[in-house]
Amino acid sequence: MSLFFDDVWVGQEFRSGSHLVSRDDILDFAKAFDPNPFHSDDEAAKTVGYPGIMASGLHTLSLSFRLFFDLHLWDEAVMPSPGIDKVRWLKPLYGGQEIQIKATVIEATASRSKPDRGIVRLLHETMETTSQGVIFTAEGLHRLRRRLA
Amino acid sequence: MSLFFDDVWVGQEFRSGSHLVSRDDILDFAKAFDPNPFHSDDEAAKTVGYPGIMASGLHTLSLSFRLFFDLHLWDEAVMPSPGIDKVRWLKPLYGGQEIQIKATVIEATASRSKPDRGIVRLLHETMETTSQGVIFTAEGLHRLRRRLA
Repeated sequence: MSLFFDDVWVGQEFRSGSHLVSRDDILDFAKAFDPNPFHSDDEAAKTVGYPGIMASGLHTLSLSFRLFFDLHLWDEAVMPSPGIDKVRWLKPLYGGQEIQIKATVIEATASRSKPDRGIVRLLHETMETTSQGVIFTAEGLHRLRRRLA
Repeated sequence: MSLFFDDVWVGQEFRSGSHLVSRDDILDFAKAFDPNPFHSDDEAAKTVGYPGIMASGLHTLSLSFRLFFDLHLWDEAVMPSPGIDKVRWLKPLYGGQEIQIKATVIEATASRSKPDRGIVRLLHETMETTSQGVIFTAEGLHRLRRRLA
């Protein structure tokens, strides 16, 4: 069953399962997308105040959205997204840590020009599973079809 | 030569080389991070109004920052970033297209609590090389050490 724009309400919450992030995952992503050395070299990470390499923020962001998409909430309604606001990396993500996400609807706006769709703004929060400490937040914009379009 | 916080000024511009994005790159990224079907299935892309699969926005974002990091502007000064604002996907990115980026300093704020560093806000713009059409914009926050720290 797919949700449509009309099925979404402010305050609605969605929670994902957990995902274990390995050191190799962190190294692979850094190699592909983020050459900043504190994502691939433990000594470089120590010089910026961390005990060892941490995931690239682009990796944490991509994993967080992957966990959200894996909920398959609105497979029949989803259209390409217009954007994301307020991406914030609050704590580092290390290899061997497990993450899970909570997403809360904070705004739902029907399109004025296109009556078949609307934009839903979600607060995405990514927690380290054991501590439940929030390591990442962002406000994702999701474009969804209306049920009665 | 590495830039430090003190070497950066509002209005300063940086431009990257070009990077060719393949259809396989798009498929690989989608498989890892974005199961929305319009990134892996041409028919699904057509149902949302595009001629074929387009890169996941997370992929476009990650590639855009990769191109920026590859400039190695501030290798000796860079610390982990606090975040990104106003991520916007303006046009789709297709396999076979080449992209390049322009980054413009729009704000530079010395830390009040930590005199050894500051935050630089850059407007990142990703262009399709041939048309120079802007396909992606974001405001990246970059935490840099001060030269005299």
